Amino acid sequence: MSIKEVSRNKCFGGHVVKYEHGSDELNCDMKFNVFLPQQATKTKVPAIFFLSGLTCTEDNFIHKSGAMAEAAKHGIALIAPDTSPRGVSIEGDSDSWDCGTGAGFYVDATEEKWSKNYRMYSYIVEELYSIVTKQLPIDESRVSVMGHSMGGHGALTIHIKNPHKFKTASAFSPIANPINCPWGQKAFSNYLGSDKESWKQYDTVELLKASKNERMDILVDVGTADGFLEKELLIDQLKKTTQELGRESEWNIRYQSGYDHSYFFISTFIADHINHHATVLKSLEK
Amino acid sequence: MSIKEVSRNKCFGGHVVKYEHGSDELNCDMKFNVFLPQQATKTKVPAIFFLSGLTCTEDNFIHKSGAMAEAAKHGIALIAPDTSPRGVSIEGDSDSWDCGTGAGFYVDATEEKWSKNYRMYSYIVEELYSIVTKQLPIDESRVSVMGHSMGGHGALTIHIKNPHKFKTASAFSPIANPINCPWGQKAFSNYLGSDKESWKQYDTVELLKASKNERMDILVDVGTADGFLEKELLIDQLKKTTQELGRESEWNIRYQSGYDHSYFFISTFIADHINHHATVLKSLEK
Repeated sequence: MSIKEVSRNKCFGGHVVKYEHGSDELNCDMKFNVFLPQQATKTKVPAIFFLSGLTCTEDNFIHKSGAMAEAAKHGIALIAPDTSPRGVSIEGDSDSWDCGTGAGFYVDATEEKWSKNYRMYSYIVEELYSIVTKQLPIDESRVSVMGHSMGGHGALTIHIKNPHKFKTASAFSPIANPINCPWGQKAFSNYLGSDKESWKQYDTVELLKASKNERMDILVDVGTADGFLEKELLIDQLKKTTQELGRESEWNIRYQSGYDHSYFFISTFIADHINHHATVLKSLEK
Repeated sequence: MSIKEVSRNKCFGGHVVKYEHGSDELNCDMKFNVFLPQQATKTKVPAIFFLSGLTCTEDNFIHKSGAMAEAAKHGIALIAPDTSPRGVSIEGDSDSWDCGTGAGFYVDATEEKWSKNYRMYSYIVEELYSIVTKQLPIDESRVSVMGHSMGGHGALTIHIKNPHKFKTASAFSPIANPINCPWGQKAFSNYLGSDKESWKQYDTVELLKASKNERMDILVDVGTADGFLEKELLIDQLKKTTQELGRESEWNIRYQSGYDHSYFFISTFIADHINHHATVLKSLEK
């Protein structure tokens, strides 16, 4: 699958490049942004996927996070995908902001209505991963994933399920237990149907309970003034699970006093997250 | 004139606060954003105004520049005003993106059609300056101004004309000689009328020629891949003027290879600009 360059802007010595491509997984054209640090002109570089939250496109993170400052210092690429299929027409896909367009939830839909297009899990893990590691100067042995809110859920679940592809994860304000919150229940009912057992494969808390993964090393930040903290994110449930499993030391879950759900919060702690990934990815350098 | 808080987000230990207020200068309601660093809870802090470019609102700089990271380190506030009066209805004010709404050009209009509202020069220099120094914890002896494109023009002209209020200036991609470029000529004809002599009071190159200012200390960055460089910004004319006047050492004009006119460019060098202002403002501390 070939990718087409849409735009290119120099930034911190490297470039932010927007690409467009036809997606086999999603049956539509998709766009994504990449920050390629200066080092990528000479050698393959490590990369962090950033999965965005509800209503976002491939642009929000690149425009608002301030991540390139720190990524450039470490010579790390950033991959910012879109959050759902685009330009497809499915009844009801634009009726609400928390299901359908802009709300793919990083699952492979099984309900017939959505299943032809809403395959964001395989799009990220297989197709886009393959595109960036084969067609861009990205070192496939040093790739990781982070995300925000719905994308924090995506990052954590994708890492736990694919630790050999995505070597570490971090999340801002993740939807940590979607099978037990309104956003997750709405999306999973629509995309996956009524069999709640099938939902567990996309739930961080459930995956963690079932996980035989080796030692994890994960950073999670959430703001104590986040309006979604109690009802949607369920970070306490995640923290409790790590404690029950004796894996508390593998999960650095930080409650940041007074911060909310916005990119002002993300920008404040993005350097910490890039540094977390840089440490893990650097240790994998051959 | 009282200001009303619209929103408040914690960011880098301080807060981004959006305010709304009725403007006497502009005869309409206006909004602006302020970043107040943590230090502002205890003491008055220095502040940098950031004047934005064509089509921008009070949000672009705050969302996209990454400036808060560096401002927080120095304990400096950032003031981000809007770029024109809002919600007024003047024939033709929405016909083009380079005159009217979003394009106030930081002048006081004298043409009758615009003169009741388009007084962005006095709005910034008098009204908003007074609001922030009297109603917010801003130290009026340590205020400066920077800007981008149209706002770079605003920052440089406002500093040269008011060095005792705005102690230093810096600019990204400023429209340095608006009386000689299409953007400036269009805006100045509309706002100031056909007497070109009156335009010179808002032209950086002309103000510099006439200036009796003491030693200046100004930083200007412009990208060599900026599509507006040759026709609209006329940075070469500014550089030539500083040389002719023997003031070259007072103007650090940097041509940044490969960068364009976007916020990706601004974000790359914003830390340098904050540091420039921090040095000057720190030297004024009592």
